[in-house]
Amino acid sequence: MGNETELCRPGERVDDLQCSGLRILQDPKRFCFGMDAVLLAGFAAAGENPSAPGTKAGSGRRKAAVCRQLLDLGTGTGIIPLLLSAKTAAEHLTGLEIQSESADMARRSVEMNGLSGRISIMCGDIRDTDRIFPAASFDVVTCNPPYMTKGHGLANPEGPLAIARHELLCTFSDVASAAQTLLVPGGRFYLVHRPFRLAEIMVTLHEKGLEPKRMKMVHPFIDRAPSMVLLECVRGGRVRLEVEKPLVVYAGQGRYTQEIYDIYGY
Amino acid sequence: MGNETELCRPGERVDDLQCSGLRILQDPKRFCFGMDAVLLAGFAAAGENPSAPGTKAGSGRRKAAVCRQLLDLGTGTGIIPLLLSAKTAAEHLTGLEIQSESADMARRSVEMNGLSGRISIMCGDIRDTDRIFPAASFDVVTCNPPYMTKGHGLANPEGPLAIARHELLCTFSDVASAAQTLLVPGGRFYLVHRPFRLAEIMVTLHEKGLEPKRMKMVHPFIDRAPSMVLLECVRGGRVRLEVEKPLVVYAGQGRYTQEIYDIYGY
Repeated sequence: MGNETELCRPGERVDDLQCSGLRILQDPKRFCFGMDAVLLAGFAAAGENPSAPGTKAGSGRRKAAVCRQLLDLGTGTGIIPLLLSAKTAAEHLTGLEIQSESADMARRSVEMNGLSGRISIMCGDIRDTDRIFPAASFDVVTCNPPYMTKGHGLANPEGPLAIARHELLCTFSDVASAAQTLLVPGGRFYLVHRPFRLAEIMVTLHEKGLEPKRMKMVHPFIDRAPSMVLLECVRGGRVRLEVEKPLVVYAGQGRYTQEIYDIYGY
Repeated sequence: MGNETELCRPGERVDDLQCSGLRILQDPKRFCFGMDAVLLAGFAAAGENPSAPGTKAGSGRRKAAVCRQLLDLGTGTGIIPLLLSAKTAAEHLTGLEIQSESADMARRSVEMNGLSGRISIMCGDIRDTDRIFPAASFDVVTCNPPYMTKGHGLANPEGPLAIARHELLCTFSDVASAAQTLLVPGGRFYLVHRPFRLAEIMVTLHEKGLEPKRMKMVHPFIDRAPSMVLLECVRGGRVRLEVEKPLVVYAGQGRYTQEIYDIYGY
C-alpha cells in the first residue's frame, strides 16, 4: 500500500470512495470525477457481478459473467477501474488516458490503494488503440466519454476540463470503433451519455456491431426529464433492448434516494 | 350527424371517447383500441397544438405547427384520426387500413360523428402508399404499428388481432418507408412502440431520414420499467433528441395519474 503523503502532490487532495476503503487523488483545479462515473461503475458492475457490493441497483437476474480483462477508455484520474476493482471480479483492469497529468494521478491513486498488480494505467489516444492493444483482447470495455460535440465556443479548448467534456480529441464514433476492435465477440461495452444524443449513439453503436441490450435512464428527480443514460451493449449481440426502471437521484432537496446510497456504498 | 342505430351493426358497441362528444364503434370480438392509441394521439397533439384539449401532458413550450394534411397508417377502427380531429387543428385527416372490416367500421364511426367532410378512411396496404398517395403530400404521419416481430407461434395468424399486433402484413421498416415518402420535408412522424425494440427503431428511422426529436417513455407505475415509448421524428431534422419526463399511468391500484386523466379528457 503506497504512502499517502508521498503520493499526493501540492494542490491535490485524497478522497475516500466509501467503497472497500478505496481512496483517489483529485485536483479541484483540473477535473474531478462526477456522479456519472460512479453510476456507470454501478451499472457495469450490475451487469458483471450481481453479488458485488453496491450493485443493488442492478436487476440481480443476470448471471455473473467472467471478465479477465477490462478496459476503461478515457479513464481520467482512474475512478472507474478503481471502483470496478472492488465491485467486480475482473482479473485485470486497464485505464487509458490521453492527458499525461491525469494518467499520472490515476497511476499514483492505484499505487496508493496497493492495486498496481491488478490495475494498469496507460497514457495514450483512443484513436490509436488498434496500435496500443491487440484486437479482441478485452471482455469488457467501459467509457464515460466527452458528452458535448465540438465547437460550442469554448474559452479554453486545451484545458483538461474542455478535453474531458467536449469531443475535442475523440468523437463518440472513435470511442465505439475502439470498443468494437478491442472487445472479444460477445464482449460488453458499458457507457454513460446524455439523453439528447441517444438517437445518434444508437445508430453509431449499430454501425459498429455493438448492440444495445440494456438501458437505464437517470433522472435528477422522479418527475423530471432524464439527465443521463446508461447503456450496456454486446459485440455481435442479437437485437433486443431491455429498458430498466429509471434511476432517480434525489428523494428531496439535498437528500439522495436509497438506490444512490446503495451505489455509492454508504 | 349519422344515426347511431343505423350505423351500429350486430355485435358492435358504441364507446364514448370523452373528448368533444366523440363516439366510436368497437367490436369486442375483433380488435378494440388500447391506451397506446390514446397516448399517441395525446403526444402527437402536444406536438401539433399545445392549446388543444387533453394535451396538458405536452410540454406546452412548442409553437403550434400548421397541419393541412394528416395521415394515420394502419388506423384500425379510426381512433387516432377521430381523437386528433378534436385535439388538433389539422385541416384534413386520412386513415389508411388494410383490413376492410376495420376500415368499414372506421368509416361508419366518422359518419356517426358527422366528420365525413374532414376525415377520410381508405382501405389499402402500407406497402403500397407510394401508389395510393402523391409523394410528400402530408404534414404529419401517425402510426400505432404492430409491435411484435413475425413468427411467435400464433394460433390464428390471419385473425384481425394477430394482424394488428404482429408484423405479418408490414414491418417497422415498411411503416418508416411510407412515412419517409409521404411526409413533406420537415414533416413530423409520430409513433408508439415497445421499448424492447427502441434500438432497431432508432436505426431504421435514421436510415429513412426521420430524425427522432422528442421521446417520452410510458411507465405503468413510477417504479417500473417502461411499457411503451412515444416518439416524434422530423423528416430531415437535425440530430438532437429531447427525452421528456416519463408518463406514469397508474397512481395506485386501479387509479390513474392526473396526467392520464388529462389525456383521456375526463
